[in-house]
Amino acid sequence: MKVTIIGLGLIGGSLSLRLKEVNFASEIKGVDNNKANEEKALELNIVDVVTDLETGVKEADLIVLAVPVDAIQKLLPKVLDLITKDQVVMEMGSTKQEILKVVDQHPNRGRLVACHPMAGTEYSGPEAAVRDLYKDKNMVFCDVIKTDEDAFEQAEAVCETLQMNPIFMHAKEHDLHAAYVSHISHITSFGLALTVLEKEKSQGRIFELAGGGFASTVRLAKSSAEMWTPIFKQNRENVLEVLEEHIKQLQHFHDLLEEENYPAVLKLIKQANKIKRIIK
Amino acid sequence: MKVTIIGLGLIGGSLSLRLKEVNFASEIKGVDNNKANEEKALELNIVDVVTDLETGVKEADLIVLAVPVDAIQKLLPKVLDLITKDQVVMEMGSTKQEILKVVDQHPNRGRLVACHPMAGTEYSGPEAAVRDLYKDKNMVFCDVIKTDEDAFEQAEAVCETLQMNPIFMHAKEHDLHAAYVSHISHITSFGLALTVLEKEKSQGRIFELAGGGFASTVRLAKSSAEMWTPIFKQNRENVLEVLEEHIKQLQHFHDLLEEENYPAVLKLIKQANKIKRIIK
Repeated sequence: MKVTIIGLGLIGGSLSLRLKEVNFASEIKGVDNNKANEEKALELNIVDVVTDLETGVKEADLIVLAVPVDAIQKLLPKVLDLITKDQVVMEMGSTKQEILKVVDQHPNRGRLVACHPMAGTEYSGPEAAVRDLYKDKNMVFCDVIKTDEDAFEQAEAVCETLQMNPIFMHAKEHDLHAAYVSHISHITSFGLALTVLEKEKSQGRIFELAGGGFASTVRLAKSSAEMWTPIFKQNRENVLEVLEEHIKQLQHFHDLLEEENYPAVLKLIKQANKIKRIIK
Repeated sequence: MKVTIIGLGLIGGSLSLRLKEVNFASEIKGVDNNKANEEKALELNIVDVVTDLETGVKEADLIVLAVPVDAIQKLLPKVLDLITKDQVVMEMGSTKQEILKVVDQHPNRGRLVACHPMAGTEYSGPEAAVRDLYKDKNMVFCDVIKTDEDAFEQAEAVCETLQMNPIFMHAKEHDLHAAYVSHISHITSFGLALTVLEKEKSQGRIFELAGGGFASTVRLAKSSAEMWTPIFKQNRENVLEVLEEHIKQLQHFHDLLEEENYPAVLKLIKQANKIKRIIK
């Protein structure tokens, strides 16, 4: 089995490290449009060799696309053009509808497995790759009905190797849910960082009081702008919906505090506490 | 040295565990208005004995107040009434101006050290207490100019024992800064939890996609309503200010996305990324 990974950052790099650990493939090739990433990936022994896109695609049984979602959208039709019916392509984007739309009628659509590993950190690039990133996390497979059975089995083997728990969803449902439990978290973190950084300009010293609570809510604000802007673009409608909802919730909290309606504030927090059911 | 800790939850319990570890006191008494907390604290060996408020205050060299800020505001004048000039009181509230206002003219004001340990978790109660909660965190001392020198030295010894880094601030400055780097983080988490819990009602399954990013931004939403409502009440003006700022930032993000101004979204995220300077 030969594997080619396109995109040698956190997602592709971590995947490769795990595949290497268990000798999943006889060879793992890497492709990245950033020369420095390719060199770093070789140096860190993340891939065996690096090559160009066309060679990488042609000389692999399994091709994994782990680049930002705008790049997936651009590359995916080209990759499907290059492959034969014996090959399998996995795309790992954080959005699904816009990506799958561009290849919906492609003759090799059946060779594509659309998936989204619900794992990540706020860091990016090959240096951020860790072999246990995926362990015990969820892998969402979308619109599997459009994927050939043998192609899906291949992806399932990868999922098992990564020790991930498979979940099945329609692309539309995926994008809505991802907006609510992943994309919005990033926006609130970006917003919080901007709010406090702005205040620091006039006030200074403001971060001396920053503790663990602040660090955890603002952690995602370190996330890559180049990766996240295309996600917000592709999932724009859902993201706008959840952002409007979230602003409404914050405004409601604000109004209760302004009116000094403390019993209602207490009740609202107790309602929010129900998240304990979900987050252990 | 005899110590009495009033409030046997996360803050008071963790403090007590560390003081016991280094034999800071010959005896540590505990006071809590909740019988179950007192029993739990004894069972977990957090304090040596439990007693009533008056006995606890009278029979200690150092009294530590670690209860919700509304309870501190109520108890503090009584505690200062009960003590002599040989005793020291530390109050550990998350707000300062409203608390210090009520004892500003008290004849024993000099015996009081107002401090805020910038440490905590989303858990509460004696079971949440851990001996290394404070290690390497900041301890903010407020309006130390109003504290007798020997009383401050006593508190400084506690601070050193907890291995904390002392910081000095005016109460007013403290409350503003705390709103920006602690209180708002909790509100965004509460807001995020409410937004997603609400959506779950109509959509179901929404949490299947929740990963580490969501967990970290929403973690604080598990925080105690009884502890946080009085904090928001006492720091209402600052909290309203930062909440308005935060809503404005989110609205700006929303508007750029609605207008499909992606270069501006990218720029905004890059600006938020500057938080890397603060949060390692």
